[in-house]
Amino acid sequence: MKEFAIGIDVGGTTTKFGIVNRNGEILVQDRIPTNEHEVVEEFIDDLYEKLKPMIDNVGGNDNIYGIGMGAPNGNFYSGTIEYAPNLKWKGIIPIADLMYKKFGLHTKLTNDANAAAMGEYMFGCTKGVKHFITITLGTGVGSGIVIDGKILLGHDGFAGELGHTIIRPGGRLHKGTGSHGCLEAYASATGVRETAIELLTNYPEQESLLRNYTINELTSETVYDCAMQGDNIANEIFEFTGEILGESLANFVMFSSPEAIVLFGGLTKSGNLLLNPTRKAMEANLLPIFQNKVKLLFSELKEADAAILGASSLVWE
Amino acid sequence: MKEFAIGIDVGGTTTKFGIVNRNGEILVQDRIPTNEHEVVEEFIDDLYEKLKPMIDNVGGNDNIYGIGMGAPNGNFYSGTIEYAPNLKWKGIIPIADLMYKKFGLHTKLTNDANAAAMGEYMFGCTKGVKHFITITLGTGVGSGIVIDGKILLGHDGFAGELGHTIIRPGGRLHKGTGSHGCLEAYASATGVRETAIELLTNYPEQESLLRNYTINELTSETVYDCAMQGDNIANEIFEFTGEILGESLANFVMFSSPEAIVLFGGLTKSGNLLLNPTRKAMEANLLPIFQNKVKLLFSELKEADAAILGASSLVWE
Repeated sequence: MKEFAIGIDVGGTTTKFGIVNRNGEILVQDRIPTNEHEVVEEFIDDLYEKLKPMIDNVGGNDNIYGIGMGAPNGNFYSGTIEYAPNLKWKGIIPIADLMYKKFGLHTKLTNDANAAAMGEYMFGCTKGVKHFITITLGTGVGSGIVIDGKILLGHDGFAGELGHTIIRPGGRLHKGTGSHGCLEAYASATGVRETAIELLTNYPEQESLLRNYTINELTSETVYDCAMQGDNIANEIFEFTGEILGESLANFVMFSSPEAIVLFGGLTKSGNLLLNPTRKAMEANLLPIFQNKVKLLFSELKEADAAILGASSLVWE
Repeated sequence: MKEFAIGIDVGGTTTKFGIVNRNGEILVQDRIPTNEHEVVEEFIDDLYEKLKPMIDNVGGNDNIYGIGMGAPNGNFYSGTIEYAPNLKWKGIIPIADLMYKKFGLHTKLTNDANAAAMGEYMFGCTKGVKHFITITLGTGVGSGIVIDGKILLGHDGFAGELGHTIIRPGGRLHKGTGSHGCLEAYASATGVRETAIELLTNYPEQESLLRNYTINELTSETVYDCAMQGDNIANEIFEFTGEILGESLANFVMFSSPEAIVLFGGLTKSGNLLLNPTRKAMEANLLPIFQNKVKLLFSELKEADAAILGASSLVWE
């Protein structure tokens, strides 16, 4: 029996990859920059150069079950990356085929957020849970939806874009898409920064530790630091963010009735500051039949590991 | 091979039932009032009295594959009706067991909106379509979600309460649940009536044919009649309703990426008056990868038939 899989997480900035066994242990890992390559073939050449010695060390292709890849706008059905706004390679990129040609290993692709959800299902805090949703609260808001133990793909492979669902119709502009009031415009690191700027601008009289930072220094981390020091505006920012996130989560629960929601990504470092108002708003907007049932969890996987594990888990499916 | 199934649709007012063959033809049907019975056993006795001669006419229980029931808050997993706000029988009603004891036929239960979705899948305009959503726009807003050819039930059987998702946070009160700004508060017959009253009250100067009706006569039908005569306020009511419905549909599409959405129920009689603004708002709020892909359809099944067919289809699954 082949013992290993390759997991590759293609991010907007960095691509992380590693060799993983069936227990979810990463034997070896490394990373390369994603967007230094004008054409995807050069990117794949670079990947191959780094991975080939790793593969040889575990017994060559004969011992590798396949390659799993997570990538922005990655389509499981077609194995293509389609119109990913954060990547240099434009249009439709048949990356699974290109990988197979270079590596001689079958390659399965899905979007990065779906890969993270599979990582949780195979190795994380919802191991074996048949119905759950993962929400990645990073620079943006990603999501992976697991129904009956399988990633929800929809008819075309693009299901699960929960960060783009509208929760404040006519609300804050999302600069990337032009939509108004989507979840990602608020409950992301970028959204928290925007909320900070809005509140500091709208209440010019109110004292705040956040005023000690230049506009470039205002990040979700500085907001967290100030909130922990008892700063009122900083705390209000998390209350506001949690309220919007919680309302959205309530909507998601009334769609698919998951057993758990797993939160993931940089913003979760704010812990209960974010979790408490989120849970409160979620419960307040749920029908009674859903109340006090849904576990709201933080992922226990290390972020870098989860991406690789998640991608690799596509292979074991 | 047993040739027939019994389909029963338990509504808040009326229960419809019939005997159906595998081609989705209803051989015979009838109805009884739902809420005249203080205890569910009496209701089942009444059902039995009506159904027994029908069953005998097609060859008795030996020729019946089973009973499929759709009911408010019907739970597929447990076969129980749980805390249905519109029914007299309170608490948890083990109706599938009680039916089996009375009829000697296996009984499968699901909620009424899920039954309608199964009817569309087996016999309707999305026959064989693996990913779609049905939205019932009646007195309330119901929904059934089909993923990979199966009703989405969630971990506890209660998935698919899309009428209760929040689309206008802090918006209109839903009198039944106490929530603010849910889809059902706007995109139902009740919601259209409320919008009419709001607009007529907020713009007391503006002339409208709707002012010729007493407040009790203001219904979604009178709004439709006036809109068809070119009344501005009546048309604005449909624009407003369609905008909110379309925004919600966009959110649902970005969740499960269905191939089609099937609209159903009394409000769909308004045709393009509702459909056009709905489609416009849906497309405007979708990410480009979802745009111009989702079919927005009206159900072609007769409403009374669809409920019975849908319920019966649980048996053939």
